[in-house]
Amino acid sequence: MKAAVFHEPNQPLTIEDVEIEKPKRREVLLRTAYAGLCHSDLHFMEGLYPYPTPAVLGHEGAAVVEAVGEDVTYVKPGDHVITCLSVFCGECPQCMTGHPNLCENTEVKLLPGAARRLKWKGEVLHQAFNLSVFAEQMVVHEHAVVKINPEIPLDRAALVGCGVMTGVGAVFHAAKVEPGSTVAILGCGGIGLSAVNGAALAGAARIIAVDTNPSKLDLAKLMGATDTVNASNVDVVATIKEMTGGGVPYSFEAIGLKQTAEQSFAMLRPGGVATIIGMIPLGTRIELHGADFLRDKKIQGTSMGGNRFRVDMPRLLEMWQQGRLKLDHLISGKISLEQINEGFAMLKSGTPVRNLINFGVA
Amino acid sequence: MKAAVFHEPNQPLTIEDVEIEKPKRREVLLRTAYAGLCHSDLHFMEGLYPYPTPAVLGHEGAAVVEAVGEDVTYVKPGDHVITCLSVFCGECPQCMTGHPNLCENTEVKLLPGAARRLKWKGEVLHQAFNLSVFAEQMVVHEHAVVKINPEIPLDRAALVGCGVMTGVGAVFHAAKVEPGSTVAILGCGGIGLSAVNGAALAGAARIIAVDTNPSKLDLAKLMGATDTVNASNVDVVATIKEMTGGGVPYSFEAIGLKQTAEQSFAMLRPGGVATIIGMIPLGTRIELHGADFLRDKKIQGTSMGGNRFRVDMPRLLEMWQQGRLKLDHLISGKISLEQINEGFAMLKSGTPVRNLINFGVA
Repeated sequence: MKAAVFHEPNQPLTIEDVEIEKPKRREVLLRTAYAGLCHSDLHFMEGLYPYPTPAVLGHEGAAVVEAVGEDVTYVKPGDHVITCLSVFCGECPQCMTGHPNLCENTEVKLLPGAARRLKWKGEVLHQAFNLSVFAEQMVVHEHAVVKINPEIPLDRAALVGCGVMTGVGAVFHAAKVEPGSTVAILGCGGIGLSAVNGAALAGAARIIAVDTNPSKLDLAKLMGATDTVNASNVDVVATIKEMTGGGVPYSFEAIGLKQTAEQSFAMLRPGGVATIIGMIPLGTRIELHGADFLRDKKIQGTSMGGNRFRVDMPRLLEMWQQGRLKLDHLISGKISLEQINEGFAMLKSGTPVRNLINFGVA
Repeated sequence: MKAAVFHEPNQPLTIEDVEIEKPKRREVLLRTAYAGLCHSDLHFMEGLYPYPTPAVLGHEGAAVVEAVGEDVTYVKPGDHVITCLSVFCGECPQCMTGHPNLCENTEVKLLPGAARRLKWKGEVLHQAFNLSVFAEQMVVHEHAVVKINPEIPLDRAALVGCGVMTGVGAVFHAAKVEPGSTVAILGCGGIGLSAVNGAALAGAARIIAVDTNPSKLDLAKLMGATDTVNASNVDVVATIKEMTGGGVPYSFEAIGLKQTAEQSFAMLRPGGVATIIGMIPLGTRIELHGADFLRDKKIQGTSMGGNRFRVDMPRLLEMWQQGRLKLDHLISGKISLEQINEGFAMLKSGTPVRNLINFGVA
């Protein structure tokens, strides 16, 4: 089967014929339907986060189950699934306390040999996030998929695998935005727009979207923003403090930059919370005025929006069916696996929200 | 009446005869019984936080009501009270949502002329935190006192006015420590020891106290610490990570230093929360690894432990009567108002937990 192979930072991915093993105990073989091109993949491709090579990247996808290994009870061939960024064991303290996104049990991921199911020219290909969605097929643990209603189009479902669950989950689970409140979101890419939409779903009265790209600010309005700020020519912190009479109770950083992370904390009103969703490059330090902590301000990270995969993903898709969660605007276009390098070049240029690789399955 | 006057940073306070006005509408005249010497006063005295001068400092006290102004309904002459670090209006969004410690309504504090009730040689003396406890008498708004059971000794009650409510409140209200959990506390002064005690009251299974002073670590054990770490000769973060198998879910910074604030974040396990209780000097920036936010780590400030004064102070004193809240160990000694400079010199040397000025009232 074909896969996009990552050889080293800042080099093009190449499409290669790759070997894939059969699913072993508790594993499933998936036929990839759609794969999202996410900024986090770009971080690895640019070397901002180290990753062993050669590898197959990609972590946001939807697929059809093709075969199941021994002892698999959760899915059967033909089922539609979303892939999970994180395998959960269901047994560790984090899983037992409602945080499967922080699962401590690497055994599930690595035994018996999971995430070592791809080979190329006799060499092991590393599987990003134990998935490797930039490939026609995947072999993953059954705890790395969430079964979905087969009526849901797989292109919409794919988005929920990373960007949407992260942006919406940051609002629901990390910040716990309350109805009627005011929210500012810095960055209107796939995750930021999903946070805007999450804030609307949570009933926020005022949703201020910030970006430098006017077309993304227009999209933010479609997703539920009540106000937009073009950050190109203004002091973002001062502007938002003025708009809100002193600062916001909830801010979200959805880019992954030092400057916007610091802004998200600086724009808080006393008692407010800044949630960092973006992946800030390794080695970058965020500098905060220590005295700002005196007024009960908080800053927190969130991985995958604190999602409890099997609980939250079906809920999100149900909200899409009801016309409440907005997914359609997030899809900028569809490309073939062979166009993946062009797709990432477009993402880097900042134009599209989300290009999906269409594997021609559904 | 006599008061300790602060003239300029790094100069001794002087004891002066000071004029005090009669209480106006909703104000009360208090006879000070005990005043605590707190590190925050020292921050002002050392110029780390600016303060207009001349001023009378002091913000942790217990007193007896001597007279009340027009429309005062909450207290009557003879009542025993704790002074509050913050006046609450009871009407603003912060007060209305359970955060009187963040009250937005400065009108209560400044109209009609409140906190401008002291004069010396014809000049207005600024009242620290609208109180000025380093004086034989105070005139304050009735929303700046909490009435207490007259059976409670006023020296114990005084401690609750700042250090104890802040340390215990940080555990109860800011971090919301859960029973059975693990907690690390950096710094075992009055606030840190109160946080240790708060963690014990909240049912934490493991309470790790950190300080460089062995006698403070001994006190921490009396307050409920299960483990102590002498920070003099070890890498605190590495030690605590090793003791806890990877980090703590709750850490508290109770000193007010850049280094310990950064340590409190670095020692978290994924999903953990660091609470900064100490006053970090103005202009000091805390540097955090941006990538640490990926694992749902949080860092937050807390002012006065998120206390709801009239609710929490009586609760704390009831827990002392039950033998559960520990106050007695916190009192290092008692001094006269005339000994205030020596008292602060001792505090700076790090020896005592809390010296109280005894005004000879009770």
